[in-house]
Amino acid sequence: MAPQIRRLQIAVSGLGRMGVRHANHFLHRTPRAELVAAFTPDPKELAWAKENLTPWGVKIYSDFDEMLKHSGLEAVCVATATTAHAEQTIRAIEAGKHVLCEKPLSTKLEISEQVLRVANAHPNQKVMCGFSRRFDASYLAAYRNATSGSIGRPTILRSQTCDKYDPSGFFVAYAEFSGGIFVDCNIHDIDLALWFFSEKKQLPKVKSVMAVGVTALEPDLAKHGDVDNGVGVVEFHDGQIAYFYSSRMNAPGQHDMTEIIGTSGKLTVNANPTLSLTEAHTPTGISREIPQNYYERFENAFVEEARQFTDAVLDDKPVPVDMESSVEAVRIGVALQESLRNGRKIFFDRQGNKVEDGSRAKL
Amino acid sequence: MAPQIRRLQIAVSGLGRMGVRHANHFLHRTPRAELVAAFTPDPKELAWAKENLTPWGVKIYSDFDEMLKHSGLEAVCVATATTAHAEQTIRAIEAGKHVLCEKPLSTKLEISEQVLRVANAHPNQKVMCGFSRRFDASYLAAYRNATSGSIGRPTILRSQTCDKYDPSGFFVAYAEFSGGIFVDCNIHDIDLALWFFSEKKQLPKVKSVMAVGVTALEPDLAKHGDVDNGVGVVEFHDGQIAYFYSSRMNAPGQHDMTEIIGTSGKLTVNANPTLSLTEAHTPTGISREIPQNYYERFENAFVEEARQFTDAVLDDKPVPVDMESSVEAVRIGVALQESLRNGRKIFFDRQGNKVEDGSRAKL
Amino acid sequence: MAPQIRRLQIAVSGLGRMGVRHANHFLHRTPRAELVAAFTPDPKELAWAKENLTPWGVKIYSDFDEMLKHSGLEAVCVATATTAHAEQTIRAIEAGKHVLCEKPLSTKLEISEQVLRVANAHPNQKVMCGFSRRFDASYLAAYRNATSGSIGRPTILRSQTCDKYDPSGFFVAYAEFSGGIFVDCNIHDIDLALWFFSEKKQLPKVKSVMAVGVTALEPDLAKHGDVDNGVGVVEFHDGQIAYFYSSRMNAPGQHDMTEIIGTSGKLTVNANPTLSLTEAHTPTGISREIPQNYYERFENAFVEEARQFTDAVLDDKPVPVDMESSVEAVRIGVALQESLRNGRKIFFDRQGNKVEDGSRAKL
Amino acid sequence: MAPQIRRLQIAVSGLGRMGVRHANHFLHRTPRAELVAAFTPDPKELAWAKENLTPWGVKIYSDFDEMLKHSGLEAVCVATATTAHAEQTIRAIEAGKHVLCEKPLSTKLEISEQVLRVANAHPNQKVMCGFSRRFDASYLAAYRNATSGSIGRPTILRSQTCDKYDPSGFFVAYAEFSGGIFVDCNIHDIDLALWFFSEKKQLPKVKSVMAVGVTALEPDLAKHGDVDNGVGVVEFHDGQIAYFYSSRMNAPGQHDMTEIIGTSGKLTVNANPTLSLTEAHTPTGISREIPQNYYERFENAFVEEARQFTDAVLDDKPVPVDMESSVEAVRIGVALQESLRNGRKIFFDRQGNKVEDGSRAKL
Repeated sequence: MAPQIRRLQIAVSGLGRMGVRHANHFLHRTPRAELVAAFTPDPKELAWAKENLTPWGVKIYSDFDEMLKHSGLEAVCVATATTAHAEQTIRAIEAGKHVLCEKPLSTKLEISEQVLRVANAHPNQKVMCGFSRRFDASYLAAYRNATSGSIGRPTILRSQTCDKYDPSGFFVAYAEFSGGIFVDCNIHDIDLALWFFSEKKQLPKVKSVMAVGVTALEPDLAKHGDVDNGVGVVEFHDGQIAYFYSSRMNAPGQHDMTEIIGTSGKLTVNANPTLSLTEAHTPTGISREIPQNYYERFENAFVEEARQFTDAVLDDKPVPVDMESSVEAVRIGVALQESLRNGRKIFFDRQGNKVEDGSRAKL
Repeated sequence: MAPQIRRLQIAVSGLGRMGVRHANHFLHRTPRAELVAAFTPDPKELAWAKENLTPWGVKIYSDFDEMLKHSGLEAVCVATATTAHAEQTIRAIEAGKHVLCEKPLSTKLEISEQVLRVANAHPNQKVMCGFSRRFDASYLAAYRNATSGSIGRPTILRSQTCDKYDPSGFFVAYAEFSGGIFVDCNIHDIDLALWFFSEKKQLPKVKSVMAVGVTALEPDLAKHGDVDNGVGVVEFHDGQIAYFYSSRMNAPGQHDMTEIIGTSGKLTVNANPTLSLTEAHTPTGISREIPQNYYERFENAFVEEARQFTDAVLDDKPVPVDMESSVEAVRIGVALQESLRNGRKIFFDRQGNKVEDGSRAKL
Repeated sequence: MAPQIRRLQIAVSGLGRMGVRHANHFLHRTPRAELVAAFTPDPKELAWAKENLTPWGVKIYSDFDEMLKHSGLEAVCVATATTAHAEQTIRAIEAGKHVLCEKPLSTKLEISEQVLRVANAHPNQKVMCGFSRRFDASYLAAYRNATSGSIGRPTILRSQTCDKYDPSGFFVAYAEFSGGIFVDCNIHDIDLALWFFSEKKQLPKVKSVMAVGVTALEPDLAKHGDVDNGVGVVEFHDGQIAYFYSSRMNAPGQHDMTEIIGTSGKLTVNANPTLSLTEAHTPTGISREIPQNYYERFENAFVEEARQFTDAVLDDKPVPVDMESSVEAVRIGVALQESLRNGRKIFFDRQGNKVEDGSRAKL
Repeated sequence: MAPQIRRLQIAVSGLGRMGVRHANHFLHRTPRAELVAAFTPDPKELAWAKENLTPWGVKIYSDFDEMLKHSGLEAVCVATATTAHAEQTIRAIEAGKHVLCEKPLSTKLEISEQVLRVANAHPNQKVMCGFSRRFDASYLAAYRNATSGSIGRPTILRSQTCDKYDPSGFFVAYAEFSGGIFVDCNIHDIDLALWFFSEKKQLPKVKSVMAVGVTALEPDLAKHGDVDNGVGVVEFHDGQIAYFYSSRMNAPGQHDMTEIIGTSGKLTVNANPTLSLTEAHTPTGISREIPQNYYERFENAFVEEARQFTDAVLDDKPVPVDMESSVEAVRIGVALQESLRNGRKIFFDRQGNKVEDGSRAKL
């Protein structure tokens, strides 16, 4: 018998590294969703789609606007290159679709704000930026714990995104479009700060940002104003501080970790990283492996993200990551990258406008 | 478009605690399988099925043999009470179906052997007993590591199955049919010993078993010849020893752990248990939670089990857990329970026959 | 100015591996003790003493009885070969000295009992067997926790003593005199069981013992009725079970660990071993080192043992390890070794007498 | 017999919290040193000394200069209030004594530099500032590992000093003289950065510092220009970055941790803190304790510091912490505190002079 369950008719745009994953998640791991279409202009991605999606009844498009016209299509997951995120999101919204967009909305603040305006103009459609860590079981456990009040007021947040070193130098070329390490990597950590520091649904107000960095292994990153190791500090106006580290040269694999420090306790996520529950006792000591990449660490979070987005649409609930926050993350990421490049501390007033004189802003 | 993928047409028998999970796994988390039918005679389980399975196109049966006649049915997952495992497995095999049967095959050795004979008489059907730990990522990592030779010859195996204490006393009544703690809990640990100790695909030969136990919290277990804490030791004929612990009173939750000790190294699985990557730093110290029950710990392993069974059928590959091993696990579990009850060490010759004089068997 | 503090005048007998350590502890790390003499008949040890003890004013003797006559001597630390422990302890007691004797008192039960009788006949002298783990900070933390009632009644104790593999084969020759692996290694674990299982200062009463073992790396151990890996189980008459593992082939180093399982909680000591707080993140994973030998793990415990023994004498307090317990540890260790050798389970009545019929003893 | 060993004749100045510890270490735990004198002007400390030091032959002085004249005195350990460190160190040096001075040399850079000049003018005397972490077994293991080249070039260092919250508010009053959280707490972390980042015995050259902070629990700290949580970032001129966190409100106890990130690996010290090897498994999870204060964490390091200082004097070896580094630590700590107070990033040229324009300094 065919299912009589109403399932969200969704398409995935882009079948690169992340697109393939999203396609598989909606196809096989999101019971309330049905992947009905996919878009890619790339011949290699197209070949993959013919082999892996077509047999499951998914229609493949090489034209994004054609795909938007797919009969019965309700939602789109935008997983193309970062440079196309905003434009496709806007076109999908304007075509009446719900949208789940990969992070970041854009590497530019103004464009991110434009997406927000369009989304706000279509209040009956769900639009969400995919900050995957918010769907990770460990981060969720920490969030429940923090919001229960058990650590007092979250005051200091430290968070890092560290990738395993890729000797192919892929990330050097990638830096041209990525927005830089603070926009590409630490955007997740910034999002976590906004999440944990929000009070009464109000985002914290950034007061200053400062960033430094080095090119320890890839001096060519300097061409794009980027680094392979960055440290950033963000002050907020009401007595909260977040500080970040990102690296492209973590030896054993992916090590993303966060600590949320409150006035009466602290929560750590992944202070003691491991891939599995297995350890090897050998003549040189005791050792364990860690995930090799972001997806190995957060696969289940991506699946949960797909499910919660689907539920939000089908059940008409608010999406779990609100768009204002995702735009604010871009603002802070871009400012950190600017501070990295010009060597200066950057100050903001409570309205989010840059102000010249830091010491005055402090008062 | 409807999928053009060939999917295994499978039914689940029994919709109790484990049956519901298996049904969900085949329905939503095993892309190459299609749950087409389910059997339960129980009104409450039937009501659940009508709400949760029927809308997805699953046909519900209250008669097991009727279900076996479901058009196109290829395989059955037997997840009823332990007492029905063997009989249903045999009937399904004889009806031409592939079978995935929950562990143990039976609490009786002779009945388990009978299942094996029937399975062997139908060599074109896949029959597998669901020893879920063999599908857990951490155990699989340990197994790959051990079979790569990195720890030398596996020589000593320690393994435990410890459940969170259930003050409702459910497990006291359950003990009447469970076969006892060594058959119900440590059967997993026994299976692991058989898995890790096999050499050139030959199972190790049991030489002696000895078990002791106490009823620390539930003296009524004694009525069923059972205990709430058991320790068992199994010697094998070629210089290997496994020792086990099981408990019904583990305070923080489920703590199953194993160490495989080889001549040049050791592998541990879950020596340092945790539910997630989150820790809480509070005025009383640093703490973490652990899984509350077997399923919370092994959910992904059950899903992987469903997938691998499905693949074995569709691709005509050997099932990953062979039936001889699953029968041997029953032999050892039953002998440990016997030793617990009569207070004696029990000896076996290389053919698996009990022998009287241990000291002579030793030579 | 010379100190006006009264300090215990103590001598060390034997300057082998352990003797040198005890000498250094009393000389440099036990403020209330003064090492005044040392005995060794061995020329190499004598040479060491001349260089390392004589300059500090320690008198060196090559005759044990002469040393006992050292003017003002109050106490002796017996740290010779195991075979001389009992005899020297008895002679020192009879010469009026307090005695701290290395474990075990003897590899023979009768001789251990004889030491106890002599000690009991000199009630004003302190006599203690040096079970070092009782002075380790981690074990003490566990003991305080357990005796506070926080885990309910200690019911199951698992404990292991695992040495790093010594390819020189030293321990094969050593096995001739060591009493075997259960008497030499697991005696510590047995002592812990007696410590944690005692109730109202009453030692638990052994009911049965059973041991098995293998010679995985050193078949020549069989000549001395010994093994390089042993598993033993000890039942006590009032519903408590201890089970033990010992090994001579632990790859990364010394790994001694214990868990004390009570009716409402569990305490682990060294489930997650490490040498220091340092971990290395390298391309192959995350690794840490562990102690390489018993002393590296328990150095501070030996120092604390020296201090507490000294305090007990100077302040006339009971010694922290009572002699009855140390004799009982020998009884159990010897019985485990016997069970290992004859392959049989051995039963005891409540008075500590062996009984033939296990199943009857059980009732 | 009296020892014939030459022992360093040393005095301790100040018998407050740290002075008492140093006195005990030199008296009882540094075999090659002899505590012969102590100075304190405080009646309560004097009473403690009469009870605890006099009986061991230690002469007590209430006048610092009188103590310096103690017959045979060779060295002084300065452990008074921070405000007296520099002056007493200078007077002791000028009186011909070797000096071990508690950190920091001073809360003022100029005074620290003056101590350095005096020390340099007496090249035959050993002068060392007591940065205790350099003597901790875990930090030493990390340092050996790093200098072996195993992690490539140390490039990023993260380090924190977090005290357990003291509700008495002691640290508020203390802030008046402590120099502020970066000088009082993070000075240790700064010292570690200087230690790990030095190359060919050359200290790294500070390029910029930036600090922010909050008063989460003790707003009164603002009176002294201090905070209870601080984050600081230090850039060095040759591509190295250190970033720091300090807190007065860590819930479970003292948690000081460091990671040293190199171009091919990372070392962590205390990422996974614990007081002992014991964990408790209770109905709410698994928990462990951590040290309650700095001394509980670093007691052995202080003892090792005393021993190594003693060895350096007696064997005429360089002291393990050089004075230039200790002055540089003050320079950086003071600059961080200044940045915290004025809200600005502060830049330095390679000669250590402040420069106005950061963006130019960057080039």
